[in-house]
Amino acid sequence: MSAGTVYGVGLGPGDPDLMSVRADRLLRGAQHVAYFRKAGRAGRARTIVEGLLRPDAVEIAMDYPVTTEIPLDDPAYAACLSGFYAEVAGRLRALAEGGADVMVLCEGDPFFYGSFMHLYTRLKDHVPVQVVPAITGMSAAWTATCIPITWGDDVLSVLTGTMSEDALARHMAEADALVVMKVGRNLPKVRAALEKAGKLDRAWLVECASMEAERVMPLAEAGTRTVPYFSIVLVHGQGRRP
Amino acid sequence: MSAGTVYGVGLGPGDPDLMSVRADRLLRGAQHVAYFRKAGRAGRARTIVEGLLRPDAVEIAMDYPVTTEIPLDDPAYAACLSGFYAEVAGRLRALAEGGADVMVLCEGDPFFYGSFMHLYTRLKDHVPVQVVPAITGMSAAWTATCIPITWGDDVLSVLTGTMSEDALARHMAEADALVVMKVGRNLPKVRAALEKAGKLDRAWLVECASMEAERVMPLAEAGTRTVPYFSIVLVHGQGRRP
Repeated sequence: MSAGTVYGVGLGPGDPDLMSVRADRLLRGAQHVAYFRKAGRAGRARTIVEGLLRPDAVEIAMDYPVTTEIPLDDPAYAACLSGFYAEVAGRLRALAEGGADVMVLCEGDPFFYGSFMHLYTRLKDHVPVQVVPAITGMSAAWTATCIPITWGDDVLSVLTGTMSEDALARHMAEADALVVMKVGRNLPKVRAALEKAGKLDRAWLVECASMEAERVMPLAEAGTRTVPYFSIVLVHGQGRRP
Repeated sequence: MSAGTVYGVGLGPGDPDLMSVRADRLLRGAQHVAYFRKAGRAGRARTIVEGLLRPDAVEIAMDYPVTTEIPLDDPAYAACLSGFYAEVAGRLRALAEGGADVMVLCEGDPFFYGSFMHLYTRLKDHVPVQVVPAITGMSAAWTATCIPITWGDDVLSVLTGTMSEDALARHMAEADALVVMKVGRNLPKVRAALEKAGKLDRAWLVECASMEAERVMPLAEAGTRTVPYFSIVLVHGQGRRP
């Protein structure tokens, strides 16, 4: 019997209508569907495909052992996650070696800050793995602002809210267009860095791009708002245009 | 009679299977379909949707008046293109004011260095305009390399081959992960800038990502190869991973 394939299926930003034709087809036909989630939660990826999977699809929930409450730089965090990824990769590998294709649901684009990457590196030398790219959350976010993100020779820098305020401000000053991912409770730091870089007045905050809960507002008007982890802050480029 | 809507429909990187479900549905039902092309060519955007449009769809080819042979910084270039965009925007506006929905085919993601942006700014205050985001060429390119582009806190900078060598090298040195768009005949300059930044040995060249003519190779092995304008050069991030 030949091995099955593990697919990292990018779901895009959240609206199922923005999945690729390929992802839609793969998922409608899937017999094994795996997804990450916080223990006790439905899981955002699983929620996106609600109503699309076969009733008899076998679901493999991969429950994260830790939450964002443990500091990212604590060695315990890396050790715990590493063990977790090894364990779930082992489960998917066993399924594929048994001949089954397994679809792993990936929010956004799998190879762009995606959790699937941690499975990919552990699986790719053992069983066939295929990745289906997808629309990124940032594409949905700039589309939601109704303003193009990059023109002509604009330099776009993608940063993460988990960086230090100084590093954020330095990169913000250098680029023409900006995307800040993983904002969440880093919002006050992101705002302070934008102010240092002289770009706060041009920044936008986008929550839940493409989803029902989508909110778009100038960052200066967000006040002390608490925002979801996957919120995105944007500054649009102003480059050459005829 | 109410006005129709002009849609900027992102087609993604080139493989029709990577269009969004929404784009696929809109295009299969479309009665008016507009697309840019070089005069005398079929047009890459139009080629992507071959076999998908209704036989009775009205096609509006928008033939570029100039080619990349005119320097980008020549004022004649901007004036010529500006007149062209005003003219074709006027045609689409008249169609929408007459009640027709018009689908404008957009390679990649419409708001990410897209030609549609030049129509968008000229139409948005006059008729309804909607943008359908799409998978970017760069997502397809990093997927084609089979290596994730960004991990943890990696900073990704998106640059264009049309920038000066010094500006390229400076930004290349600052970022963890790199994407260079609009490579084409700028390849020798892009290579020189990567060498200055000490990243040439980690760079990849991707031509025609997701299409039949896809080619992926380490940039150091590309020699004096002539590459298509839409080729992409990548350097993958090496960030934190458990």
